[in-house]
Amino acid sequence: MTTAGGGWTLVASVHENSIYGRCTVGDRWSSQQGNNANLPDGDGNWSNRNTFGAAEGATSDDFKNPGYYEIRAEDMSVWHVPNNFPLEHWNLAAILRYHTENHFLRLYGGNLFQMFSQYPVRYNVGSPGNRGPAIPIVYDHGDKESTKMLYGPKPRGEFEPGFITFRAINNERAAMAICSGVKPVRGYNTEHYCIGGGGYFYTDQCGDFPSFDWDRLGREQGWSASKEMTEAAVLLFYR
Amino acid sequence: MTTAGGGWTLVASVHENSIYGRCTVGDRWSSQQGNNANLPDGDGNWSNRNTFGAAEGATSDDFKNPGYYEIRAEDMSVWHVPNNFPLEHWNLAAILRYHTENHFLRLYGGNLFQMFSQYPVRYNVGSPGNRGPAIPIVYDHGDKESTKMLYGPKPRGEFEPGFITFRAINNERAAMAICSGVKPVRGYNTEHYCIGGGGYFYTDQCGDFPSFDWDRLGREQGWSASKEMTEAAVLLFYR
Amino acid sequence: MTTAGGGWTLVASVHENSIYGRCTVGDRWSSQQGNNANLPDGDGNWSNRNTFGAAEGATSDDFKNPGYYEIRAEDMSVWHVPNNFPLEHWNLAAILRYHTENHFLRLYGGNLFQMFSQYPVRYNVGSPGNRGPAIPIVYDHGDKESTKMLYGPKPRGEFEPGFITFRAINNERAAMAICSGVKPVRGYNTEHYCIGGGGYFYTDQCGDFPSFDWDRLGREQGWSASKEMTEAAVLLFYR
Repeated sequence: MTTAGGGWTLVASVHENSIYGRCTVGDRWSSQQGNNANLPDGDGNWSNRNTFGAAEGATSDDFKNPGYYEIRAEDMSVWHVPNNFPLEHWNLAAILRYHTENHFLRLYGGNLFQMFSQYPVRYNVGSPGNRGPAIPIVYDHGDKESTKMLYGPKPRGEFEPGFITFRAINNERAAMAICSGVKPVRGYNTEHYCIGGGGYFYTDQCGDFPSFDWDRLGREQGWSASKEMTEAAVLLFYR
Repeated sequence: MTTAGGGWTLVASVHENSIYGRCTVGDRWSSQQGNNANLPDGDGNWSNRNTFGAAEGATSDDFKNPGYYEIRAEDMSVWHVPNNFPLEHWNLAAILRYHTENHFLRLYGGNLFQMFSQYPVRYNVGSPGNRGPAIPIVYDHGDKESTKMLYGPKPRGEFEPGFITFRAINNERAAMAICSGVKPVRGYNTEHYCIGGGGYFYTDQCGDFPSFDWDRLGREQGWSASKEMTEAAVLLFYR
Repeated sequence: MTTAGGGWTLVASVHENSIYGRCTVGDRWSSQQGNNANLPDGDGNWSNRNTFGAAEGATSDDFKNPGYYEIRAEDMSVWHVPNNFPLEHWNLAAILRYHTENHFLRLYGGNLFQMFSQYPVRYNVGSPGNRGPAIPIVYDHGDKESTKMLYGPKPRGEFEPGFITFRAINNERAAMAICSGVKPVRGYNTEHYCIGGGGYFYTDQCGDFPSFDWDRLGREQGWSASKEMTEAAVLLFYR
């Protein structure tokens, strides 16, 4: 396991290998089985002991090590690193880096594996707008304003930056695992700004970055996230 | 490699990630290439040196380590462990545990890799009802009656419990690798109670647990296996 | 990492798991996302730090270790080993073995990762017939004539044997990574004799061995490569 200064340990990365794939090969953090309501949990990797990838390749493919479910941690750090940057440049290249400081993981079993057993990442598990905890963050690189600008113009009206939110439910009852840097407060079209998920979404939205490309006209228009966000892996650290 | 008491070494697990998938991603013990008669061996992992997964995740995804083809063993043990249970609870959680005692692997080259080079897991390699050896088992948890009840009502008339059977051919000449806990004796619709396979099956039956869900009306009806069996990984140990 | 005599280190293998698959699961050296012009780089594994597989399984599945991008090498060796042969027989079983001696990698950053950042393996990145360097080879097993005979009768008129060529562009602007043993000199239907690639090819040609089976009538007819070539993994070593 890789420690990134200050005692942080990398336990996972969420990498979107193809924004065009709809729960296809490589969508390990949602489903690789196609959009299927019969598989509400999808691949289930938020809540199982499966592991994959290598730390050195964490910006080139999905990654999950045993630390994800074994470590008993207190806080989380999240780095958004443009795809394919090597480990030695993650810090410098990141478009966003932040961490929590309130030891929230103590309340939820000490890691995301435990957190998501309480808040399952599963289609139709809750009502639209329902969510797990939203934890305030401290920025190491970037700020609330830059976080906001990394998502599309329309989502900006739906969330409040400065938080990491867990297990958000959207209007079609699809579940997402993490809203990185933001807390959904209205509208709840979370598929445009939250990542990971269960196995079923509204048509054409299933995937690790579910519907970051909704407005195909171009990046950062309408609901579509910026090119920067879409092409950056989300690295998850524990401490 | 993981040793599970009594000198047993875990070498593989067969995990059905989606009973709805028909030889799709995750069907490493049959085929990930769709149902295709041009690929009679499917992924071929019963007979090659490919490895995948991790022991700790053996109930969450397919697993195969070099021991599968390297170890020269005498006997096998099989545990059916409900998906996602952690290693420390495999023993307790298993719905079925049994092993062989007659050192049969000595006759077949010392491991399954060698066994399956003699009995290829390949579509159309033999006649309906043809099979490799059926070895008597000793139960560590469960018995012949409970084994029987884990499969659907209709298969119960086709097999005799108390054995592990290798490379069974069904009526449509599809090959399966292991009939776990049972010996096919008539009818030979083995796709409902044997696991793993080549790359081609009758329509809608291709997969690691080929047709355990044939009667979609519900589990444990008609040909369909019980929910317990369908949602348990099959762990293979050598000694 | 595995050293194969004379200081060679195995860093990768390109294994065609299904010549029928068209950029499907297992096509890690081209694309696992289907043929898609929106993904010109495909899986991108020639140019990223993702790793997969194990050296012992290099003839049974794709393999790539950190040496691929970390080692600073001078020369390359390539072995074509029939699928599924174990490590101890690779040398004996290989249908073709050769290496470079002119230290060409010094000019291109010391490894293929660096080479392909200069010559991206990407659809539509260059004109038909365009290519990267073609390096003369010294044969350890086989010769120019046997190299020629391993490909189909029609390709034989398009290439000159005795070279390893990097990043060849075909007539439809698809990019291939390596022309193993040959240099394209006319015609440029390189999809029949070069391997690896980006994410988009002409209909029905996308894959790790892109169109080695074009003339379905049988192996080694028209444009189709020999059965030997089609069913051999391509092992890449550095020194």
